[in-house]
Parts: sequence; structure tokens; C-alpha cells
Amino acid sequence: MEKRKLSLLLDFYELTMSNGYFKDGRQNDIAVFDVFFRSVPDGGGYAVFAGLEQVISYIKDLSFTKEELDYLKSKEMFDDKFLQYLKNFKFTADLYSMEEGTPIFPNEPIMIVKGPIIECQLIETVILLTINHQSLIATKATRMVKEAKGRTVMEFGARRAHGYDASIYGARAAYIGGVNGTSNTYADFKYRIPAMGTMAHSYIQSFDDEYEAFKSYALNYPDQTVLLIDTYDTLNSGILNAIKVHNEILKPKGKYLKGVRIDSGDLAYLTKKVREVLDENGLTETKITVSNSLDEYLIRDLVTVQEAKIDSFGVGERLITARSEAVFGGVYKLAAIKKDLGFVPKIKISNNAAKTTTPGFKQVYRFYDEDSKAIADVLTLYDEVINENEPYLLFDPTYPWKQKLVSNYTVKKMLIPIFEEGKLVYKTPCLDDIRVYAKKELTTLWKEVLRLERPHQYYVDLSQKLWTLKETLTANYRKK
Amino acid sequence: MEKRKLSLLLDFYELTMSNGYFKDGRQNDIAVFDVFFRSVPDGGGYAVFAGLEQVISYIKDLSFTKEELDYLKSKEMFDDKFLQYLKNFKFTADLYSMEEGTPIFPNEPIMIVKGPIIECQLIETVILLTINHQSLIATKATRMVKEAKGRTVMEFGARRAHGYDASIYGARAAYIGGVNGTSNTYADFKYRIPAMGTMAHSYIQSFDDEYEAFKSYALNYPDQTVLLIDTYDTLNSGILNAIKVHNEILKPKGKYLKGVRIDSGDLAYLTKKVREVLDENGLTETKITVSNSLDEYLIRDLVTVQEAKIDSFGVGERLITARSEAVFGGVYKLAAIKKDLGFVPKIKISNNAAKTTTPGFKQVYRFYDEDSKAIADVLTLYDEVINENEPYLLFDPTYPWKQKLVSNYTVKKMLIPIFEEGKLVYKTPCLDDIRVYAKKELTTLWKEVLRLERPHQYYVDLSQKLWTLKETLTANYRKK
Repeated sequence: MEKRKLSLLLDFYELTMSNGYFKDGRQNDIAVFDVFFRSVPDGGGYAVFAGLEQVISYIKDLSFTKEELDYLKSKEMFDDKFLQYLKNFKFTADLYSMEEGTPIFPNEPIMIVKGPIIECQLIETVILLTINHQSLIATKATRMVKEAKGRTVMEFGARRAHGYDASIYGARAAYIGGVNGTSNTYADFKYRIPAMGTMAHSYIQSFDDEYEAFKSYALNYPDQTVLLIDTYDTLNSGILNAIKVHNEILKPKGKYLKGVRIDSGDLAYLTKKVREVLDENGLTETKITVSNSLDEYLIRDLVTVQEAKIDSFGVGERLITARSEAVFGGVYKLAAIKKDLGFVPKIKISNNAAKTTTPGFKQVYRFYDEDSKAIADVLTLYDEVINENEPYLLFDPTYPWKQKLVSNYTVKKMLIPIFEEGKLVYKTPCLDDIRVYAKKELTTLWKEVLRLERPHQYYVDLSQKLWTLKETLTANYRKK
Repeated sequence: MEKRKLSLLLDFYELTMSNGYFKDGRQNDIAVFDVFFRSVPDGGGYAVFAGLEQVISYIKDLSFTKEELDYLKSKEMFDDKFLQYLKNFKFTADLYSMEEGTPIFPNEPIMIVKGPIIECQLIETVILLTINHQSLIATKATRMVKEAKGRTVMEFGARRAHGYDASIYGARAAYIGGVNGTSNTYADFKYRIPAMGTMAHSYIQSFDDEYEAFKSYALNYPDQTVLLIDTYDTLNSGILNAIKVHNEILKPKGKYLKGVRIDSGDLAYLTKKVREVLDENGLTETKITVSNSLDEYLIRDLVTVQEAKIDSFGVGERLITARSEAVFGGVYKLAAIKKDLGFVPKIKISNNAAKTTTPGFKQVYRFYDEDSKAIADVLTLYDEVINENEPYLLFDPTYPWKQKLVSNYTVKKMLIPIFEEGKLVYKTPCLDDIRVYAKKELTTLWKEVLRLERPHQYYVDLSQKLWTLKETLTANYRKK
């Protein structure tokens, strides 16, 4: 994608607030904002973090052109000095983040922005938008890939995506989540996500009959002949013509029918029948691909319950839009603000205890047991140190009498510096490395966390210090 | 949005097919493709067409750079002459379309592409992607606006959109669908969709107390003071501080508290209480805005059932992602292909009768009764003429014995030329005109078609000629 000018892609209130801070002379107040989410889509047990690379790119390019500033001036709401500030805008804040491909859990910071409060507000919208979108699709993809049990999964959703970016970054996120490729040529051109595809029904229909269409394709692509066999009648026409083309066109050239695709009908029944017919004709190596509004539940049913004969899944709209739950609810909440005497932790109280935020500038430690399985994440104050040589008391922040003393564990700091005082200090891994990392990271989760139905709720705890701080602030608030 | 290079944003099979047509010497075969959809999201009775302006812009810019062609060459699948063809690519086809803002119905062409088959294939993906996305959001918006019964509806969803384009073009589509404005500054900058917004909870939290925050905002925006009153406690703190700020800051300046916003809690209960308190304090003109995961069903409940005291709705994720049904299923099907003797209509048979396509190069006529209410759409062959002075027999294409002879009707040709032999012959209306047109068009529908629950199924019929053609092709196919 060519360079995008996204600096005005922000909720208007970021500007009214920023102008307000500026006019109040508070533009240098240092704030800490947490990015976190409250629940996993589809009732899942984990999500997969994605989108950091695009956030970095956006922040690096953040600046305001004369045209943009003229537009803002025309709103007659903004102080000239504030517009001057934007004209000279320079990002100077710190950004901490988990790495792309990391499993993430509700109510833990997955990103922290620390810096002048105006800067924090200006980047809120694009951070959330980017992270919410890509984490949504990456997470959904892992679920489909898991249920495919080693079979190929292809992302075929471009035509149903919510706009151009959704198709491109959606393909990127799906690839992080483990799909093997995409139908989206741009995603291959730009991100080297393997693009694949053979023919639509229109190709078949454009010929006088199905056999002529298959023959044309086999002649044009003898090494990659994958034929769509459901245009007229899968069992009485499509598969028979496909075999005929193999025998008459491909075999004489020493080639082999690579695959067939079925895009409609009863996929369990049809694939079993087609497999039989292929095998009876000696085409045991020909692969069967299916598509048609598939998702993780249908894939699971086909693979595990129906024992359909499928080698490869093409998933479209239900992946690229995460149709069953199309919203990833990442939020951006103030956690602390620096006053003269140092950081003052901030809390947002809610009648709903789960919606009360966790105050302070924080770090997240992931605890692993001796088998390298993740057992809990613990939110701490940023400078707390966890000594792996000492037992550590994990406890539930809502029900603190639920406790577990762990020893023989290792910990990993999950939030790492990306920008320090505006300077990029992180090197984004290449996409294939992110994908490998994501796959490996999923193996650190218990299978009880990974399952689709009623997964185990992974523990996200607070350190004793942080818990005490939160309780104190809540109690103080109640006293008021 | 700056110029986008989207030429490679297409499903890879469009390229394999196009290369195949080219190698077969069929690049000049003229094809007709229909864009249509099969069902309305959310079980609705109508959809609203949007996205044409972006389709036009994409087609005008369609060309292939050296870098793109080098990439394609690297796939080692494409003929050099085909790549040469792409290098010199020039769009020469015809595009017919309904106008943006038009109510559309299942199984009727909303767009038709007629031209060299390669051109038709190359633009398939972006046409579908654009139309599917924007029609989805425009339709959803009309539902919310309708249930708000004249109250303001604002699009607040940028942070939950599926990428940058989804936030921008989603705001555009929502505006076509009738929302009054957006939180998305870019959408205002680029499309003059009124952007609005005041403050987030973080603004309140960044001060030592709520009153100080409100005071700061009122001083900075005395003419546009809308205060978010639910950060701590709406009734015991927020509304009281808002009134205090009115009395102490705004009133002495001759200003007035413009509004309050509530983003959590029981919106029905809270708005009634807040209205009471405002009125008791003489603030009868202060508006109440609510937000928090709203959709058309919740809006209907608040307005019609709960009689909540709400002046304005901010709708976020459930509009910008169309969360309850995030897929608009527009498809692109071959309808005819020109052979030596003229156009040969093409049909895609399906075991599911509803999925069998309607063949031929077509036009859509909308029939209106004497009260200018739309009574049916009739698909005809493109050159059929309907004489308004003669009675016309409408009949159900699936149950042809269901008939109605209509007279005293008027008809409108719904598909109009956009490109003719590659030349743009259509002037896109400005966005505000599209919005006005969309609103007016909805008034041509019976309220039974507009309702949310079990709407009347608007009639989409075939002309006698077209019906006979479809029956004949189906019967011919069966004979094979």
C-alpha cells in the first residue's frame, strides 16, 4: 500500500480534548494510557494480538499538512497556537506493546502509551482501529486453522471485506493466525502472503460445455490444474469431466490432476463420493478443496463429525468479517497522569466491577510452568521485579481468597518498548516470522484454553502491590 | 483519500482466468455480468445501494505499473503477451448501475458489466468489495435512523471498524443511510460529513475532579458545551456538576449548557432522571445524548417502549461493523456471452431453485402506483419496452399462477449507463444529494417493507419474455 495520510483519521473529540489541554496549558502533562479488551469474541479463551506493524507505520508518519490544518481552522473551534502545535507536531511519547502473534487475554494491557497527554489522545483512534481489526481476524483464523487439523486453510474473503484495507490487512492478520494463503493478489504483492486461485463458475459457463472449459484450463495450467466441479452437477458431470480431462489432456503430458474444488451442496456427502470416484480412477493424489460460507464450527463438523474427505478449505466472508462476532472491543483508558509529585494513578469506577479499570503504569508478566505452559498473567506496577527463584502467590483479583503459591516457574515480560521518547527502538519481524511465532505461542496454552466451547478462563491476576493500589483508590472513591 | 493503487486488489483467479481467456484467443469475447444479492441482512425487507462513486474512481484508475507486472511475471503462470496486454490495459467496457441511495432487493441486477470478458473479470473483486461494504452499512444506518424517529443519530464507530477504509467509507455509507454526522474527522475533511465530538472519560479523569474537568471544557467551548456525565456517577455527581458548571460558568457569560452525554448504565432510567433534574433546574433546552453499543433494536426499545428521554444517539460498533449481520452477499454472475451469432444467455443451474441465475442482458423496471409507491420491480431483457398506457401483468416467477394485472402505474428504468465503451458518462452527485435522494426513495416504499420484523417481501418479478427464456434454458439443461 502506498503511503497513507491518516493523520486526520481520529475521533473528533481527540481534537477538542487536545485543544482543551493545550488551552489549559497542560500540553506537557504526561499521561499513561492502557489498551486492553474485556472479552474474547465468540466466547473464546484467548485472542491473538496483531496490527503493531501498522500502528508503528502510522505513528512514524503522523504529521499535519497545511490542507489538514486549514480544514481544522475552518471548524472555528481550535486555538491558533494549538494549530501551530499540530503544524510542528513531533511524536515524543513512549509506546510499549506486546508482540504481534502473542496470545492475549481480557483486562490486561496489550499496549501502553506514555507521554504528553495530547499525543496520547491523538493516536487513540488509529491504535484501537488497527489493533481491534487485525486481532479480531487473527484470532478468528487460529480457530479455523485449529479445527482444520492440519489441512490447508485459505483466506478467500476479499469480496466480502469491509473495504480495501479490510481485505488486505485482514489477509495479513489471517496469515498471522495460520492460514496458508489468500485469494487476495495485493496481499501477495505487498506482504508476500501466498496468493492462490484457479477459476470461478463464470470460466466454466463462458464455454459451451464444462469439458471444454476444463480442457482449456488444463492446457493453460498443466502443472496447476485445479478444477471447479460444481457448476452444473458435481457427481454427474463435474467430477466425470475432471477425470476425463486428466486422462485425455494431463496424463499424456505426464501431468496429474492437482485438485478439484466444490463450492456448493452437501460438502460432507459430495467430498466422500468425489474421493471414491477419484480413487477408483487412480487419482489418489488429487486434492479436494471446499468452500461456501465456512467457519470454525462447520470445519469442525466436516472434519471431526462427518469425516468428510477434504484436503483444503477456502474460507471467505466468515473469516474476513469475523461474521459470528464482528467486533473486537479494545479500549483505551487513562491509567495514570504525572503531576508535580510524580505519577498519580487513575481509575475509572463502574457499577459493574469488571468495568472498573486497573490504575497505574503497569507491566504484564506471563508465568510459565516447567513444561513451558502459560499458567497466568500477572499485572504489576511497571518497576516491580519478579524473582523466579522465589515462590509467587497468584490470587484472583475479584476473589482474593482463591490463591495458589507457585514455584518452579519462569516469567516473561510481555510489554516491550516500541517507541522511546518518540524514537522507534523496535524492529518489526517479517510476516513469516510473526506467523511462526504466533503458532509457537499457541502451543504454550493449555488445550483447555484453546477449545471452542466453554474454554478455561486463563488467569489474569494483579500483583499484591497493584491490587492494594486498586482497592485503595476504589475505597477512596467510595468515601467521597 | 489520496489516490490508491488498487489494481492488484483482486482475487488471484481473476488473473488465472483472464490469462486463460487470453491464451485461448478469447480476449475480445463480450460478456455480460450481473451484480446482485440474494438476501437482505438482518431479515430486512430492503437494502440501500451505495459505493458507486468508489467503483467509478477505481475503474478510472485501473492500470498496471511495471512493479505490479514484474510481480505477476514472478509467479511464472502468466503469458508474456497477457502481461503486455495488462501493461497497455484500457477499460473499454460498459457499466450500468442503479444510483447510490436506491432501495434494492434480492435477485435483481444492481449493476451490470458488459464488455471484453477479461475486463469484466479483472474488476469483479473490487466492485463486489465496494458495493458489499457500503450497501451493508448504508442499509444498517437506515434502520437505526428510522427507529430513532427523528432524533439525531451520530456514527461513532471508527475505533471498531475493520481498518481505515471501513471507518471512512463506512461513515460515508452511514451518512447516505441518514445519520446526521460522524466522529470521524477524516470523513469530514474528505467528504464533508459533519464531524462531531466533545470528550472521552479520559478528559474527566485527567483532572483532579469532575467539576474541574467540566469547568475547563465550558471555558474552552462555551458555545458547544456537551458534557460526559457518567465517569463516576451519573445521578449523584455527573449531572449535578454539569448544572453547577452551567450556573457558574456558562450562564454568567450568557451561554447555555448545550448537552450531556451518558455512555453507560441503564439508559432508559438515567435519561428520564437526568431530564427531570435538568428541567427542574430550568435547563429544558439541554439535549441528552446516549451511546453504548446501540443498534436499531435498542434504539427502538428506548424510544418506543421505554420512552427514554433522548435527543441524540451515538452509534458505534454495531453500525460500523453491522455486527448483527456483518456480511452483504453481493455476487457477480455471468449472464450472457457474445458468440458469432450474438449474445448467448447463460444460466447457472442450482439444486436450490433460488440460486439458479437469471440469464441474459437485462434491465430493471420499478413500477409505481398512483401514490408513487413502489409496487414491484420487473426484470426484463434490456431492450424490452414497457408501455405505461397499457395494463401490465405482474406474476411471481416461482409461482407464476400468482398474478396481478396492474394499470395506472408508472415505471422507471433503474439501471443507467455509467461507462459506455470505457468512457465515463455519469456525473456522480454530491454526497448530500445522494443522502437526500436516499431519504426520498425510502418514502416510496410501503411501511410494511420498511419494518424491522418480518417485513413484506417486495416483489421482484420477471417479464414474460425473460421468464420464458429462463424456463427454456433450465429445461434444456435438464434434457442434457
